[in-house]
Amino acid sequence: MVHLLVTGGLGFLGLQTARHFLKVGRLWNPVLQMKAPLSKITLFDVGFPSEDLPSDVVEDERVRVVTGDLREPGVTDEIIDDPDTSVIHLASMVSGDTEAKPEDGWKVNVEGQRLLLDSLSKRAPGARFLFTSSTACLGPVADDSAAPDDYTKLLPQNTYGFHKAVCELMLNDYSRRGLVDGRALRLPVIVVRPGVPNAALTGAWSTVVREPLAGRPCAVPVPLDVRMPVASYQVVVRAMEVMLNDIDAGELGADRTLMLPSLSVSAQDLMDAARKLASEHSLPFAAVQEKVSPSAERVVRGMGSRTDGSRATMLGVVGDESADSIVLSYIHDYVLPGGVGGSKKLFGV
Amino acid sequence: MVHLLVTGGLGFLGLQTARHFLKVGRLWNPVLQMKAPLSKITLFDVGFPSEDLPSDVVEDERVRVVTGDLREPGVTDEIIDDPDTSVIHLASMVSGDTEAKPEDGWKVNVEGQRLLLDSLSKRAPGARFLFTSSTACLGPVADDSAAPDDYTKLLPQNTYGFHKAVCELMLNDYSRRGLVDGRALRLPVIVVRPGVPNAALTGAWSTVVREPLAGRPCAVPVPLDVRMPVASYQVVVRAMEVMLNDIDAGELGADRTLMLPSLSVSAQDLMDAARKLASEHSLPFAAVQEKVSPSAERVVRGMGSRTDGSRATMLGVVGDESADSIVLSYIHDYVLPGGVGGSKKLFGV
Repeated sequence: MVHLLVTGGLGFLGLQTARHFLKVGRLWNPVLQMKAPLSKITLFDVGFPSEDLPSDVVEDERVRVVTGDLREPGVTDEIIDDPDTSVIHLASMVSGDTEAKPEDGWKVNVEGQRLLLDSLSKRAPGARFLFTSSTACLGPVADDSAAPDDYTKLLPQNTYGFHKAVCELMLNDYSRRGLVDGRALRLPVIVVRPGVPNAALTGAWSTVVREPLAGRPCAVPVPLDVRMPVASYQVVVRAMEVMLNDIDAGELGADRTLMLPSLSVSAQDLMDAARKLASEHSLPFAAVQEKVSPSAERVVRGMGSRTDGSRATMLGVVGDESADSIVLSYIHDYVLPGGVGGSKKLFGV
Repeated sequence: MVHLLVTGGLGFLGLQTARHFLKVGRLWNPVLQMKAPLSKITLFDVGFPSEDLPSDVVEDERVRVVTGDLREPGVTDEIIDDPDTSVIHLASMVSGDTEAKPEDGWKVNVEGQRLLLDSLSKRAPGARFLFTSSTACLGPVADDSAAPDDYTKLLPQNTYGFHKAVCELMLNDYSRRGLVDGRALRLPVIVVRPGVPNAALTGAWSTVVREPLAGRPCAVPVPLDVRMPVASYQVVVRAMEVMLNDIDAGELGADRTLMLPSLSVSAQDLMDAARKLASEHSLPFAAVQEKVSPSAERVVRGMGSRTDGSRATMLGVVGDESADSIVLSYIHDYVLPGGVGGSKKLFGV
């Protein structure tokens, strides 16, 4: 019997993660040193989203939902209530908010993880703890240089990336001291995000697929030809399973963070794949307009277009095949009837 | 008129730094954008050392000594009492203590710097802030791989190195946001330390020079043939002057830390140089014994024997010439009459 705690558990990625692990049904138990049936998932978040929660997840009897603030006394003890706990730590202030309020960001992103690790190491010593880091750690990458990999020095160019880099170092240290068995996945831009467009510049890589397929014309503030490292949410949740269930701590050594394998694609690439699939499935496809903001263009062009996830690949983490496969799996989940988003209750189209 | 605040100012390196800047007599003023006469040095530390303070430093009318705890309310405001302040931040829990008390280490090493930066950015916006980092950030380095340089990923193998790495990232972020003009020097093993032997394993590289020259037989817990990256304290204080007075922020770019140029030498190399100079200056030279502890040997052999300081060199930071030059400058300062340690008041032989 094993307990999985997912922080940020009521966000898009948190719910996808829960759905995936409910289906997988088992989790590595560090006490027993074997995989055991997953008996409980705690979805922890600061509050409920405005959309309804998806019934297939929250009505599963193994799922418990808890809301609160990690930094309030007693909260970490309430959610880590089992010595057989593993953690997927997704909770974080997003990049724009962190840049605007760096002191709050430090408290949520850095001190939040520290409190969680301290509590976990006391209540479930040696537990596996998976943190989602970000390619924002990497900093600027010239397109003619080698793609950054697991040996690249981190030079974050925003406060969010700085905090994520600190969290990676913190995980290495807690793991070295034997307090937790930490792991981190450094995520690229996640596509295709369902739901409503958000303010993130990298949201454009989702917008150009989601909006036209929903028959809604849209505009994006970045040029369609800029390439970014991207991965589908399906690849991310499967990678989390591999990280928690299949990779031995010894294989990670002193550096607990793996760069998730990514594809280097432009918004145009994704839009072209979506247009082709729309035609094959007789779906609508509305117009997308480039309304380039010079500052937005400068930011995304400075982010680096590729990453090298070969260490993760070597350890069994599988990336996406192509822009086509990414769009097709989104269509299956959120556009065609019968997908996970078919209930239209959460993040449906 | 410029004010220099030195935290950890009553330690060995702090007093050497103060002595050097009193002699140089001027400091870059970010408000005036020029070098200006140094009007005040504040030496801040947690308490007074057990030895007398050196009179040439503390009796200089420009020097103010303040003791206290950075984290007490009002303390940073008391010591940053001038908009023309620059800071050399040496205060830190040492490596062994940090490993033994990681939570205290986080408060002193990480939160301490954060408080100092927040206060400085409010009271002296854009001030230059020099932090002494450590090669403990680097982590293990195989001797057949390239020497780590300013592009090497940081993989600290102890909590002290983890905290120093976080402080480096923090300085980059505060500098990027324009709050301070941060700089850091990543220091190798500093030799030859005067005074009494300390518990640090890397202290052996000083012990084998200092003790025999003082006529005191001694034993060291590490093999004499292990090489480490070392620099003299004279090179360190001159590098601090170059960092604060001569290097433009634009030359540092997004990465504010420079690896100090170092020499890769064994304790044997330093001892041989000292024996030769002892004979030339008719000084005593007592016996040194190897009493190797297997755990100590493992630690120092895992630390990496070299660093590549070529970015610092390119920016005008000068390293040591040779083991001979390091030992000779120590002898001039602390063994022969008339040196800075000649008063025998502090750290004298």
